[in-house]
Amino acid sequence: MPFVKRILLGKPLASNQADHQRLSKTIALPVFASDAISSTTYAMQEILMVTAYGASSLVLAVSYLNPIAFGVAFLLAVVTISYRQTLFAYPTGGGSYVVSRENLGEKPSLVAGASLLVDYILTVAVSVCAGVRAITSIPAFRSWQQHTVLICVIAILMVMLLNLRGTKESGRIFAIPTYVYIVVLSILIIYGFSKSYFGWFGGLEVHDLQDFPNNLPDYLQHSVNESSEEGMTLLAQGGAFSLFLLLKGFSSGAVALSGIEAISNGISAFKEPVSKNAAKTMTYMAMIMGAFFFGISYLATHIHPVPLEVGESVFAQIGIQVFGRHNPMFILLQIATALILFMAANTAYADFPRLSSLIARDGYLPRQLGNRGDRLVYSNGIIILSLVAILLVVIFRGLETKLVPLYAVGVFTSFTLSQLGMVKHHLRIKERHWQTGMAINIVGASVTFFVLLMVAASKFASGAWVSILIVISIYIMFRMIHKHYSRVQEAIAVPKDYRPKRMNHTVMVLVGRMHSGTLHALEYARSLAPNHLVAITVVSDEDEKNKALEQWDNFNFGIPLEIIYSPYRELMRPVIQAVEDLDARYDNDIVTVVIPEFVVHRWWEHFLHNQSALFLKGRLLFRKNTVVTSIPYHVD
Amino acid sequence: MPFVKRILLGKPLASNQADHQRLSKTIALPVFASDAISSTTYAMQEILMVTAYGASSLVLAVSYLNPIAFGVAFLLAVVTISYRQTLFAYPTGGGSYVVSRENLGEKPSLVAGASLLVDYILTVAVSVCAGVRAITSIPAFRSWQQHTVLICVIAILMVMLLNLRGTKESGRIFAIPTYVYIVVLSILIIYGFSKSYFGWFGGLEVHDLQDFPNNLPDYLQHSVNESSEEGMTLLAQGGAFSLFLLLKGFSSGAVALSGIEAISNGISAFKEPVSKNAAKTMTYMAMIMGAFFFGISYLATHIHPVPLEVGESVFAQIGIQVFGRHNPMFILLQIATALILFMAANTAYADFPRLSSLIARDGYLPRQLGNRGDRLVYSNGIIILSLVAILLVVIFRGLETKLVPLYAVGVFTSFTLSQLGMVKHHLRIKERHWQTGMAINIVGASVTFFVLLMVAASKFASGAWVSILIVISIYIMFRMIHKHYSRVQEAIAVPKDYRPKRMNHTVMVLVGRMHSGTLHALEYARSLAPNHLVAITVVSDEDEKNKALEQWDNFNFGIPLEIIYSPYRELMRPVIQAVEDLDARYDNDIVTVVIPEFVVHRWWEHFLHNQSALFLKGRLLFRKNTVVTSIPYHVD
Repeated sequence: MPFVKRILLGKPLASNQADHQRLSKTIALPVFASDAISSTTYAMQEILMVTAYGASSLVLAVSYLNPIAFGVAFLLAVVTISYRQTLFAYPTGGGSYVVSRENLGEKPSLVAGASLLVDYILTVAVSVCAGVRAITSIPAFRSWQQHTVLICVIAILMVMLLNLRGTKESGRIFAIPTYVYIVVLSILIIYGFSKSYFGWFGGLEVHDLQDFPNNLPDYLQHSVNESSEEGMTLLAQGGAFSLFLLLKGFSSGAVALSGIEAISNGISAFKEPVSKNAAKTMTYMAMIMGAFFFGISYLATHIHPVPLEVGESVFAQIGIQVFGRHNPMFILLQIATALILFMAANTAYADFPRLSSLIARDGYLPRQLGNRGDRLVYSNGIIILSLVAILLVVIFRGLETKLVPLYAVGVFTSFTLSQLGMVKHHLRIKERHWQTGMAINIVGASVTFFVLLMVAASKFASGAWVSILIVISIYIMFRMIHKHYSRVQEAIAVPKDYRPKRMNHTVMVLVGRMHSGTLHALEYARSLAPNHLVAITVVSDEDEKNKALEQWDNFNFGIPLEIIYSPYRELMRPVIQAVEDLDARYDNDIVTVVIPEFVVHRWWEHFLHNQSALFLKGRLLFRKNTVVTSIPYHVD
Repeated sequence: MPFVKRILLGKPLASNQADHQRLSKTIALPVFASDAISSTTYAMQEILMVTAYGASSLVLAVSYLNPIAFGVAFLLAVVTISYRQTLFAYPTGGGSYVVSRENLGEKPSLVAGASLLVDYILTVAVSVCAGVRAITSIPAFRSWQQHTVLICVIAILMVMLLNLRGTKESGRIFAIPTYVYIVVLSILIIYGFSKSYFGWFGGLEVHDLQDFPNNLPDYLQHSVNESSEEGMTLLAQGGAFSLFLLLKGFSSGAVALSGIEAISNGISAFKEPVSKNAAKTMTYMAMIMGAFFFGISYLATHIHPVPLEVGESVFAQIGIQVFGRHNPMFILLQIATALILFMAANTAYADFPRLSSLIARDGYLPRQLGNRGDRLVYSNGIIILSLVAILLVVIFRGLETKLVPLYAVGVFTSFTLSQLGMVKHHLRIKERHWQTGMAINIVGASVTFFVLLMVAASKFASGAWVSILIVISIYIMFRMIHKHYSRVQEAIAVPKDYRPKRMNHTVMVLVGRMHSGTLHALEYARSLAPNHLVAITVVSDEDEKNKALEQWDNFNFGIPLEIIYSPYRELMRPVIQAVEDLDARYDNDIVTVVIPEFVVHRWWEHFLHNQSALFLKGRLLFRKNTVVTSIPYHVD
C-alpha cells in the first residue's frame, strides 16, 4: 500500500519545501483562470435555454444575446476592478471567507464560506459534465454518450488523483491545454466572424433547425413548425421582446462570472510580488473572458444554435457550423474545451481544500480537514470534494444544464459579502487613496447584490432554492461544530491548581474458558500491579460454576475469581453490574476491564471472534472512569 | 432501548423455563405442518406452468395433473412412512443434519445441513411472496400489487419480530388461521366438486381464457388463438402426451413435499411422549396434504386455470371460479391462504435457528449462532434468516414462480441423506424389528434419491444450478470455519508445563496538546506502575519541539518526554517507529501504548475526534505483544 501510494502520489514533501510550490504568472493563469474562462461555454447555453423557453422562439431568443453580452461584460468589469482592491489589501489570501471574517464578523463569513464550498463542488460537477459532453459531441465518440455518468465519475477520480499529487504539478499538466484552448477559441471566433461578416471562406450558412427534429425541446417545436420568417416578423413587431426575459437571461449569463474570485482566494500560491502578479493575472483573465463572451455571442446570434439537454451543446453546434462537423479543427476545439473544463474542475480542487482547511482551523469544520497530508495539500478536503461532486453528477445524471441553475446564488452571495467586507476594510484601515478604493467596492457590492437578488428571484424555482437550502444547512453545521469544539475546549482546560495525583486503580479480568489467550490476559493484568485485582467469570448454573472453579484452581495466579450468575445466558448486563459492584466496593479512581481478544489474520475470520468484547467495549465506553483494555492474542 | 426491546420481545425467560415452551399436538400441527400443507398451493401452479410450457397448451397441460397428483401422493406416503422411523429413533431431534452426522459422518451431514439451511431460507421467501400474492388477488387490494416487494419485506420483518418473542406464542398466534385454512379449503374442494361432478349449485363453468388476453404468457397465446376444441382434439390424438413432460411436471410437483421434515427437525418442541405425538402429527399432516392435493388437482383439471407470473395465482383462479370473484368466501380463502403461507415462513423460523445453532455448536458456523438470546430462541439465526430471505425477495422481485425452481434439489438431498442415515442407524443399533424399519428406509432413500436425480436434471437450467452452487458454497464455508476454529483451538491450547510468569511491561503515553484528557491519561499510565514508562510527542520542527518541552516542564509528572520529528506531518509511521525503538531498547515482554481519547455524547460528534487514535489502533493490532489502551475522557 505505501508503495502504491508513492507511485500514485509521488514523494512526500517536507514543510520547508512549501515555498517552492508557488506559481509563476504563466502557470497561475491556467490554474486560476480556467474556471472563469471555461464558464463562458455553458453560460451562453444557459442564456439561450432560458430566453428560448420564455419567448418560445429561438429566433427571438438569439436577439437577446447581444444586450445580455453587454450586461455580462459590464458586470465582469465591475467585479474585476472591485476584486483588484482585495488582491492588494489581502496579499496572503483574501477569499470572500477571509475578507468577510475580518471585516464583517463571524456570521457573514460563515455564509460566505458555505456559499463558496457549495460553488466549488458545483464547479467540479458542472465542469466535468460539460467537459464530457464536449468529448461525446465528437462524431467518433458519439456512442459514449450513453455512459456519460460513468465517464464523469472516472474523470473526477482522475482529477482527484492528480490533485493528491500536489498543486504545482497539476498546474503544469494543465497549463498547455488552456493555452491551446485560448488559441483555438480565438481561431473559431475570428474565422467565424470573417465568414459571417465579410462572407470570406464561402460565408456562414445559418443552421437549419430541421436537423434536430427528434430531440428538439417541446417549447421550440412551435418555432420549427412555423417558418423562420414568421419568427423574424414577430421580432420585428417588437412586442415579444420583454425586459423581464432580458433580466432572466442576464441572470443565467451571470454564471459566467463563477470562478473569477479564484485568484483572490488562492493568492498565496503566486510568486512575489504577490499582489501585483495576481492583479495582472486577474486583469488578463477578465479581458480574455470578455472577448470570448462577445465573440461567442456574436456567432450564436448568426448561427441560432439549439439549446439541448443532451447531445451537442450550443458551443459544439457553433463549432460544427463554423468548422464543419468532421473538420479536424472542430475535433481540436472539442478536445480543448473538454480539457479546459477539466482544468476548471481542477481550480476548485485548489480552492476547496484550501478554504475548508481555513474554516477547519477556525473550528467550524472537523479538525481533520485542517491537517496537511503527505504532499502539502489537504487530502481530506480533496477526497470530500470528489465524493460530493460524484454524488451530484449521479443525482443529476451528468446533465450540466440541470446543475447550472444551482450555481449563481452562491457565487453572488460570496461576491457581495467580499465587496462589502472591503468597504469596511477601507473604512477601518484608511490606507492611501482609501476613498477611491471604497467607492470602487461600494459600486462592486451594490452591483453584485443587485445581481444576487435578481438571480435568487428568477432562478428560485429552477434550482436556486436547492442551493439556498444547502448553504443554510452548511451554515448550521458550521455553528454546531464550532459550538461543540468550544464546549470541549472548556471541558478539557487544565485547572490552574492542577497537580498530578496518584490514581487508585482496580483491574478486573473477564475470564471465559481457560486458554492461552486468557492466561496471557491474566499475566498482563498482574503486570499492571493495580491496587485491587480480580477475575470474573459468568456462569448460568451450579454445574458451570463448579467447572469454572476447578479449572481456576489448576492455575496458581493468586487472583481471586468471582462467579457471576446469569440464568438468562446474557453476558452484557451481568458484567456491567459486576463493574458497578467492584467500583462501589473499593475506594477507587478508575476501573480497568481487561478482555482477552483473538487476533486472526484473514478478514473473514474476525467475524468468528470477539463479538461480545466489541459490544462490551461499546457499552462501557460511556461509563465514567472506566477503561476497557483488549489484550490481543495472536493466533497465527 | 432496553424498554423498547421488552415491549417488542416480552420478558426474558430463564433457562429452567425452557421445558414450558413445549407444544401440544394441536398447536404443533399448525406450527410444523403449515409449510407442507401450504406448499400444495404453489406446487400445483408450478406443475401447470411446466407442463403448459412444454405442451404449449393449457388443455393438454391439465390432463397431466391427475397422474402427477397420484405420483406426488405416492411420494408423500413413502416419505411420511420413512420419516416416522426417524421420529422414533431420534426423539430428541432427528433432522437430516443430525441423522446423517451420527450415521454417515461429517461430509454428508454438512451437505444435508447446507441443503436444509438453503431450503429454510427459500421457504421464507417463497411463502411470503405467495402469501402477499394471495392478498393482492383480492379485488380490493389489487392496487397493492405494484408494491409487492415492499409488502413482502414488511411481512418478513413482522414474522421476524414475532419469532424474536419466542416459539410458543408465535405458535398460538398462528394456530387459529391454519385451522381456518383447513376448513375453508375443505369447503372449496367439496363445494367445487359438488358443482362440477353433480352439477349442484348451478354447476361449474369452465374458465374462459379470453379473460386474460393481456398478461397471458407467450407460450399460451397459441392455445388461446385456437379453439378449446382443437386443443381437445390434440389431446385425443394422444401424440403430444409425453412421458418426459410427465416426469418434468412431477419434479415440479415434488416441491409440495418441502417442509414435511420440519417435524423431525423440531421434534424436541413436542410434549411427552415425544415420538408418538410427533409421529401422529406427521401422519395427520400427510393425510391433510394428500387430500388437498388431490382435491385441488381435480378442480384444476376442470377449471383450466392459467399459470401466470403476476396477478391471480392458479390457486386464486380456482377460488374465483368456484366461489365467484366478489364472494366473501373467496376473500376468506385468500386471507386464510396468505396466513397459512406466513405461518409456513414461521416454520422456517423455528427450524433455521435451531439447525444453525446445532451446526454452530459443532463448530461449522460462527459461535454467536449457538448462543441463546433473551427469549430462549436463537436471535442471531432469526435475524440472518430474515435478511437473506429479504435479499432473495428483492432479487427475484417478489415473484414466487421464479423462486420455486430453486427449491426441490435441497429438499430431496436432505431427504435422501436422512433416509440413508436411517438405514445405517438400523444396521448399527439393531433394535427390535430393525429389519422392517431398514426396509422402509431403503425404499424411502431409493425413492427420494430417484426424485432428487430427476429434479436436478429437469430443473437444472431453470434454477436448480443456483441452489446447487449455493449449497456447495455453504459447504465450503462450513469447512473453512471449522478448519479455522480447529486451528485456533490448537493455537490457544495451554501448554502442559504452563506456570504463570511475571511480565516486563513498558508503557508509552502518546501526548499531543496538554489538556485534561492528556493529564488523565498520564495519571492512568503512572498508576499502571510498569517497568518502564515514557511519554512521546510528535513535532514537525524545532519551534514545535521547544513549545512541547516548555509545556511538559510545567507539569511535574516525573515521566521522561521523548520528542519525535515528523517533517511530513505524518503521525502513523513515526509513532510506530517509536514503538519499535522502545521495544528494542528494553528487555521487554509487552508494550502498552496509552492514547487519550475524548468521549462525546452525540453520534455526529464522534466524527470530530479520535480519528488518528482509531487508525493507530487498527495498525498496532497486528503488532505482537502490543496493547493499545484508550483512556476515555468524558467531555460532558
